[in-house]
Amino acid sequence: MLYFDHAATSFPKPVAVGEAMQRAVVEFGANPGRGGHQLSQKAADIVEKARTKVASLFGAPSSKHIWFYPNATYALNQAILGFPFNEKDEVVTTHFEHNSVLRPLHHVKNQYDLTICSAGGKTGAKTAQEVISFMTNKTSLVVINHASNVTGEIIPLEGIAKRAKEVNAVLLVDASQTAGIVNIELVRDGIDMIACPGHKGLLGPQGTGILAVKDDYQLKPLTHGGTGHFSELPYQPEQWPERYEAGTLNTPGLAGLIEGINELESIGGLQVIYEHENKLLHYFTERLNKIQAVTLFGSEKSTNKVAVLSFTIAGISSQEVAIILDQHYQIAVRSGLHCAPKLHEWYGTLSEGLIRVSFGPYTTMKDVEQLAMAIEEIAEAF
Amino acid sequence: MLYFDHAATSFPKPVAVGEAMQRAVVEFGANPGRGGHQLSQKAADIVEKARTKVASLFGAPSSKHIWFYPNATYALNQAILGFPFNEKDEVVTTHFEHNSVLRPLHHVKNQYDLTICSAGGKTGAKTAQEVISFMTNKTSLVVINHASNVTGEIIPLEGIAKRAKEVNAVLLVDASQTAGIVNIELVRDGIDMIACPGHKGLLGPQGTGILAVKDDYQLKPLTHGGTGHFSELPYQPEQWPERYEAGTLNTPGLAGLIEGINELESIGGLQVIYEHENKLLHYFTERLNKIQAVTLFGSEKSTNKVAVLSFTIAGISSQEVAIILDQHYQIAVRSGLHCAPKLHEWYGTLSEGLIRVSFGPYTTMKDVEQLAMAIEEIAEAF
Repeated sequence: MLYFDHAATSFPKPVAVGEAMQRAVVEFGANPGRGGHQLSQKAADIVEKARTKVASLFGAPSSKHIWFYPNATYALNQAILGFPFNEKDEVVTTHFEHNSVLRPLHHVKNQYDLTICSAGGKTGAKTAQEVISFMTNKTSLVVINHASNVTGEIIPLEGIAKRAKEVNAVLLVDASQTAGIVNIELVRDGIDMIACPGHKGLLGPQGTGILAVKDDYQLKPLTHGGTGHFSELPYQPEQWPERYEAGTLNTPGLAGLIEGINELESIGGLQVIYEHENKLLHYFTERLNKIQAVTLFGSEKSTNKVAVLSFTIAGISSQEVAIILDQHYQIAVRSGLHCAPKLHEWYGTLSEGLIRVSFGPYTTMKDVEQLAMAIEEIAEAF
Repeated sequence: MLYFDHAATSFPKPVAVGEAMQRAVVEFGANPGRGGHQLSQKAADIVEKARTKVASLFGAPSSKHIWFYPNATYALNQAILGFPFNEKDEVVTTHFEHNSVLRPLHHVKNQYDLTICSAGGKTGAKTAQEVISFMTNKTSLVVINHASNVTGEIIPLEGIAKRAKEVNAVLLVDASQTAGIVNIELVRDGIDMIACPGHKGLLGPQGTGILAVKDDYQLKPLTHGGTGHFSELPYQPEQWPERYEAGTLNTPGLAGLIEGINELESIGGLQVIYEHENKLLHYFTERLNKIQAVTLFGSEKSTNKVAVLSFTIAGISSQEVAIILDQHYQIAVRSGLHCAPKLHEWYGTLSEGLIRVSFGPYTTMKDVEQLAMAIEEIAEAF
């Protein structure tokens, strides 16, 4: 099976990820921070090691600024539903957003005024300009998809972060498609919160998600429960990270996540990974551009993009293409809306969806060559 | 290390649990239900298998009635914070509850009137009588800790379930200490919702939690995001389980959970496990009763209890006992409040806490013998 669905989850995972998870279950299945004994301490050490690793990756002030969740969706919900909106606050976001941003924003829409920037259209740079122009002194929260999970387009954050600071807005970045591929940092880049899954670019297992924060934004906890310490209080304690992490953490998952991040370093770091994937994207884009029946979505260039690309083939539905690739070619891609309805609305592809391919650090030029040949054959046959 | 902290998490886990998790990561790391390809289908199959297994365990109407979460805390928060309270509704609960029930109830306390039953004191039967007597036609929700994580006391559910049906209240059972040990079923026993972790009695890994429901209680989803299907909607779809499971599930964790539940069957089923653990509890209780310096908390009998027991030793703090056991005897127990402040308040042990020991299916009489001897030595020395 050739796997081109890295935008959904990276695969295969580094061997060390599964090994670390098994080891965690065998060696210290005990509950982190919920007992004073040695096995519990071993589990707590793993959690702290994971926090430190992620803090370093995202340039966070300390390990306490890293909170662990089951997925990026929870992290984004914590940031958005937990945000302390005031009356007449404004929120600015983009049409590139995933439902894990759009739906929580919709859920609390009576608490603020929402602007979804879409005039910028398909390029990240234009969208960033529009976001900047829409921010006012009333803007309290800006939510930006760092890269589209449909077109791979990267939204440049520099100007947005600068403007957010000027108007005293909190900048929340959904790094689901960029964490582990494009370097961003909280303190250095003036980003307030970064949410991402552990199981995409960070090469960790499913069941892990991260909210990394630069400061105290007075968020309201999303869930309430056992925190190990401060048990006498009838509400969540003020202390981090306990306040935002009720209940037992996924220790085996975090043990796996550590190894996923270690692997990023082994490969050579984010810049090496980005360049490798972008080279494949550039080659594949060029090949697709030569097929008359193929319509590419997103900007024509492959610069300022992560390796995610969507297209249609004239005369055959996206779903059928995905099925043929799966059944006949043993090639995994994804068709549909990719949980990003606003962008599909903008493209007019809400009913049909698109075929999406995405590359990972282990994808080779030979893999991409095979994919391109398969697409050429299908396009020719229909 | 002798491990007596099963009430926090079971340990060791069955070998098959870690193996299944590693296999899941290696063989089908792909994202369940977020793509149409074979690897995604394999992951979706594992999730469905886990649902079916849990549905069978809890006598649920179908696999769709099983929703997966990162822990029991999230499941309880989904049930409580998501509950559609009406004005003047009453909620009845007990002083045995964990903070994962008390804190969410406290968080939405302005939405209803709360009664915390405690006159029943230390026995489950008396508490159940009190719960029944407090239920009125205004009672919309009853939340019952099936067994105390401090004293092991089981609250009999039969009369409560009957009365709940009469007054049309929803019965939510926190089975954190009983799932995998005491058999309860949704349909057969007239229980509306069961919440539990996957990593305690079910012998699965941390990172897994369950909310099993008998019916549609019109809950409001706790998190909002990608659901794979129905992506065009700006809010969570009506369909289960998608409505209540936003974002990517913990497939490796669920693969492990399946093996944990399989192991329950291999051991001989819940009745065998309960009787084994209860025999150990009975023996240990008798031994402790003979030590003058030891004060046991909870009812004197070991019947109608899971194998969890708390005590103090005169002249030495609970925390010190736990440290001595850990450092000197290589024995893991837990001291503190065990996230159950109301019960400690009732006992007057809020400031000092208690020493808690808990047994699992692999605990042997020899292990318990060693624990008893260590306690005797410590009691004698102080």
